[in-house]
Amino acid sequence: LLEKFFSPSAVAIIGASDKEGKVGTAILRNLIQSNYQGQIYPINPKYQELFGFKCYQSVLDIPEKVKIDLAVIIIPAPFVPHTLKECGQRGIKAVVIISAGFKEIGGEGAKLELELEKILRQYQIRVIGPNCLGMINTHAYLNITFSANTPLRGNISFFSQSGALCTAILDLAEREGVGFSKFVSLGNRVDVTECELLQVWQHDDETKVVLGYLEGVEKGEKFIEVVREFTQKKPLIILKSGDTSAGSKAASSHTGTLAGSGKAYQSVFKQCGVLRANSIEELYDYGISFAQQPLPSGSKVGVVTNAGGPGIMAVDACEKLGLEVTSFEEKTIKRLKEVLPSASNFYNPVDMLGDAQAEVYEKTLQILSEDSYVDSLLIILTPQAMTPIREIARRIVKVTEGVGKTILGCFLGGARVREGINELKKGNIPNFSSPERAAKVLQGMVTYQNWLKKGTSTFPKLPPLKKQLIKRALQKVSREKRVTLTEGETKEILKTVGFCLPESQIVQTAEEAARVASQIGYPVVLKIASPDILHKSDIGGVRVDLRSEDEVRDAFEAMLVRVKRFFPEAELQGVNVQRYILKGKEVIIGMSRDAQFGPLIMFGLGGVYVEVLKDISFRVAPLSLEDAREMVEEISAYPLLVGIRGEKRVNIEEIVTSLFRVSQLGLTFPEILELDINPLKVSEEGGVVLDARAVIKEK
Amino acid sequence: LLEKFFSPSAVAIIGASDKEGKVGTAILRNLIQSNYQGQIYPINPKYQELFGFKCYQSVLDIPEKVKIDLAVIIIPAPFVPHTLKECGQRGIKAVVIISAGFKEIGGEGAKLELELEKILRQYQIRVIGPNCLGMINTHAYLNITFSANTPLRGNISFFSQSGALCTAILDLAEREGVGFSKFVSLGNRVDVTECELLQVWQHDDETKVVLGYLEGVEKGEKFIEVVREFTQKKPLIILKSGDTSAGSKAASSHTGTLAGSGKAYQSVFKQCGVLRANSIEELYDYGISFAQQPLPSGSKVGVVTNAGGPGIMAVDACEKLGLEVTSFEEKTIKRLKEVLPSASNFYNPVDMLGDAQAEVYEKTLQILSEDSYVDSLLIILTPQAMTPIREIARRIVKVTEGVGKTILGCFLGGARVREGINELKKGNIPNFSSPERAAKVLQGMVTYQNWLKKGTSTFPKLPPLKKQLIKRALQKVSREKRVTLTEGETKEILKTVGFCLPESQIVQTAEEAARVASQIGYPVVLKIASPDILHKSDIGGVRVDLRSEDEVRDAFEAMLVRVKRFFPEAELQGVNVQRYILKGKEVIIGMSRDAQFGPLIMFGLGGVYVEVLKDISFRVAPLSLEDAREMVEEISAYPLLVGIRGEKRVNIEEIVTSLFRVSQLGLTFPEILELDINPLKVSEEGGVVLDARAVIKEK
Repeated sequence: LLEKFFSPSAVAIIGASDKEGKVGTAILRNLIQSNYQGQIYPINPKYQELFGFKCYQSVLDIPEKVKIDLAVIIIPAPFVPHTLKECGQRGIKAVVIISAGFKEIGGEGAKLELELEKILRQYQIRVIGPNCLGMINTHAYLNITFSANTPLRGNISFFSQSGALCTAILDLAEREGVGFSKFVSLGNRVDVTECELLQVWQHDDETKVVLGYLEGVEKGEKFIEVVREFTQKKPLIILKSGDTSAGSKAASSHTGTLAGSGKAYQSVFKQCGVLRANSIEELYDYGISFAQQPLPSGSKVGVVTNAGGPGIMAVDACEKLGLEVTSFEEKTIKRLKEVLPSASNFYNPVDMLGDAQAEVYEKTLQILSEDSYVDSLLIILTPQAMTPIREIARRIVKVTEGVGKTILGCFLGGARVREGINELKKGNIPNFSSPERAAKVLQGMVTYQNWLKKGTSTFPKLPPLKKQLIKRALQKVSREKRVTLTEGETKEILKTVGFCLPESQIVQTAEEAARVASQIGYPVVLKIASPDILHKSDIGGVRVDLRSEDEVRDAFEAMLVRVKRFFPEAELQGVNVQRYILKGKEVIIGMSRDAQFGPLIMFGLGGVYVEVLKDISFRVAPLSLEDAREMVEEISAYPLLVGIRGEKRVNIEEIVTSLFRVSQLGLTFPEILELDINPLKVSEEGGVVLDARAVIKEK
Repeated sequence: LLEKFFSPSAVAIIGASDKEGKVGTAILRNLIQSNYQGQIYPINPKYQELFGFKCYQSVLDIPEKVKIDLAVIIIPAPFVPHTLKECGQRGIKAVVIISAGFKEIGGEGAKLELELEKILRQYQIRVIGPNCLGMINTHAYLNITFSANTPLRGNISFFSQSGALCTAILDLAEREGVGFSKFVSLGNRVDVTECELLQVWQHDDETKVVLGYLEGVEKGEKFIEVVREFTQKKPLIILKSGDTSAGSKAASSHTGTLAGSGKAYQSVFKQCGVLRANSIEELYDYGISFAQQPLPSGSKVGVVTNAGGPGIMAVDACEKLGLEVTSFEEKTIKRLKEVLPSASNFYNPVDMLGDAQAEVYEKTLQILSEDSYVDSLLIILTPQAMTPIREIARRIVKVTEGVGKTILGCFLGGARVREGINELKKGNIPNFSSPERAAKVLQGMVTYQNWLKKGTSTFPKLPPLKKQLIKRALQKVSREKRVTLTEGETKEILKTVGFCLPESQIVQTAEEAARVASQIGYPVVLKIASPDILHKSDIGGVRVDLRSEDEVRDAFEAMLVRVKRFFPEAELQGVNVQRYILKGKEVIIGMSRDAQFGPLIMFGLGGVYVEVLKDISFRVAPLSLEDAREMVEEISAYPLLVGIRGEKRVNIEEIVTSLFRVSQLGLTFPEILELDINPLKVSEEGGVVLDARAVIKEK
């Protein structure tokens, strides 16, 4: 249905004008000047005619036989609902609302926007906006924005949640001569969001790559689904703002404190194959490169230069970003020695020296293009005294055309290199103002290639949960007007989903503690059991490695004294006597609930690794097999799990399975807000939950 | 003396020409066209006259009464030594050698360069080059480069170890209209290096900031001394390449493996207040900003924008870089509410909305300029339909002039914002193509301001070393044709410089071990003592926490069996019985010797923190008080030393003192190549060396 937006056969411009400085004038003029081939119907009761087009009082006045595919509304906000209704009555199914004065101003505006929503549902109209800059489809000669710039034709499509950013990007694109395919300012997104656009553009032959600017996503689950599918077909690069200021809400669990919405987006992008741009420039660099160049088949980069310094900079940048500054085939080096002066560097980076002429560039690139170890070529030029810049650019284009490798230019300088850069541009070779920018783009392209190679994500088949049992346990807590589950309650739930617990028992007296400890076997741990005490160890509520009846008795008494002193009001359920498990490594598995994306799963090594070093990984549920493995491997302390210095490898599969269990639990029970398994003790054989807690929604 | 280079009253151009495409032509023409006010003496036996100037056979033919301050040599390399000698005979004290064909081509070229060195010493000539692009001083109308571009006048000085990069920077500067003061291509640095330039430019009123491109430094100690002094006066920004590929030599100690030359440069820059640019663009951004704007007095940034999105991006970027997105004074917010529309954001970032006119910008900036919580202002503009870009730029310049805050522009777009950017430029306000670039510059300026606030570094007075004792110990190892010191030997040296050692004794039998252990007191550690076994614990050569005579005896026997199996040839000095110290945290202090900068000191927490997490800090000796404290505080695990969750703080002063001791040892004994104290056990009270090793130079 959205296709009507992009290729309408007739457009009504409601609020068209011919007064200078009016948005209605700018849009009508842009539409005319963009050479639109369909019919144009200006609507404005004040005019009979506008720019030679007959002007109508309302869309209802347009002759019935005319099929209006798209209407653009540019009138003051209070009149928009009525006009939208008329569009509905007239059978118009696609409307772009430019007008501002809705949700973004709050109060009355928000009410007006709710009205729009009702009307568009009633008449089944799809709406872009309100409060937007409009949209462009260069392939349909359609520009219904009030921007001063119309972009060239190209194969980059763009959506933005900020209209202002659209104007900046269009202005930049004009200067750089970059073409776009579709260009949409989303505004308040009363109806159409980035998701619908991606679903359409996925099948759009005129779109090779999509760029987007995002401030936030509303339906997280749908976003994940749509994007995951999209990136299997085309690259999607997103500039996301609002990372640091958000997620600062205080939260009571580790996972909650460490998560924050920035982490959720970061995770979702990783899980869905989205490349993230860190600035407007990076967004732009990615856009032109994906649009113009083939993907590199691997991470091996060849660098060619007429200046040593920038060559080294390129190598530094590539290595820092994890690209491989490749070795060449032997025959390559032999051939290079035949064509380059003897003082050249024949290895990577190939330094052809300062007086390199066009032919030297051509021959060198010819040779490197035929080297199977080279996936991409970064071609550097500095404007030295005798450098025939334009001719070199021409030869670069000629010799690299169709070689199936990614070719990026790095002509450094200003006025003198401009003509060369233009030649590269004509030959679809993007140029970057520094080796670092070029390397960053290459890294992104390799990352996307690796994403494609991984194929679609596989989700594990998990055994069904014992829903009734868990439900009842959660309801019991709610009935007692609590939101925090005790260690015991949390562990019971974890047990039902398959986790192992250490042998343990709650006791009331020191004698009982000693007896139970002897039954369980030494060493044991004592832990205070109280719904009111969250950080047990902070107040001496945990004693580990107790090795005899006497130690257990003493610890019990001392613990009660301390706890009563610090928390005289706390409800005590007793003291938990638990087998003390020495073998294995402590890991933390946590879940917190993100407002947009739902359960956000955390993993890290226990203790200081999480608390001090923040060495943790995140993914959004549901986790694919790849997600779970990656989140274990991604932490810096991963070598400790695999075993260093002769230590034994812990059971990684057990960790992966545990992550799935927590993911499943979080998805199935939205009332669970936070869950910490801290620690899960994992050895070669398996894992045991030593401590855990959970927080549920208030009833 | 170097001043002759920059303000000569007469210049001889040796190898001048008028043939197109010749370097001698390009330089003579540049000198004439740069409007040089002194006398010009072209030298070339083939000409009588060049461009209207009388041409001489050699410098010796110029009338004796003329004082030639500077000669430029552009003739083929083999003739350069003779010509340089003639310059010496003629009394010329400053020579720029453009000619290539010296050290950079090796063999004959290297020999020629040695000849140059001899001649310049003999005649006391200062030489820039050879193999360079030349130099420029815009304030003396002096351009003796063969570059196609002559920069505008300005107050940025630049040196570069790459001539090609000079051409690119000059070309870029011309496009951007950026001015330079002095501009020097250093070439092979047979005589003048970056150090001499910095010493001169430190006192040069026409230089406000210095940019440099560095591939390597030769005299590390001098560099540190010169730069430390320089940055107390003016900012120095360096682009350094060759970080990743270098330092990859295998080394046998932890410190050696982890150090590498990249770390040494990184440390030196930190210790000397140098800002490091990560790309040509960053170098450039820093240059114009330091040149045109005052330093911010603190890290508090105010952001002003006509578009929400880029405002959020700016806030994200600032926060990520550790800048403070400041709160405003109450009166500021009150005043903003009076001048801005009600839907604006009156807090930081101030969003004046898309239709903000010039007056709105002016009033808003007026108000924020008067807010004492604002140290710098980041002013964003997107080219929206009704934005009077040029007028806004004019008002920005007008209202922020002389307010004493750092003002950076961020006009986003291309052609439409160009005129605005030009207006800003005229008013000395630099503009950046993204909020991220502007934020990065601000961070650098704040870092430099903090460096100035710290003042000159203070170096601790250390007690004198017992040099003779240490010398003898090292000589003994050398005499035995060893390079590795045993644990015992290393510890003895550490003891003489003030380190504490645990009680310990080397024993030969299991019985002796048990007896000594009982004397020392349990628990104890056994460690194999052999100069041939470096990684003792890997082969079972260390047993800890032994608690009885029996355990000691068993451990002794088992250890000998294992060691003899793995190292049948190893010379055994016995087994070390040592008190096992439980209290405290294990840290590592190491020293490795950098080829350029000498002793590079390393600090980290013991075990996995260093080996797996690479959580370490480096500084070059001698350490200032600030250096030592910073290197302790800089590691991520620092909170563990201060004590988390009720643990006791370790003695940080003891660590700092230990760092000084190692620094002093490294400086005093250049024959010590590597030293590892791993671990030093530090508690509240003090530190004890549990294990240590050292490597010395081969004789």
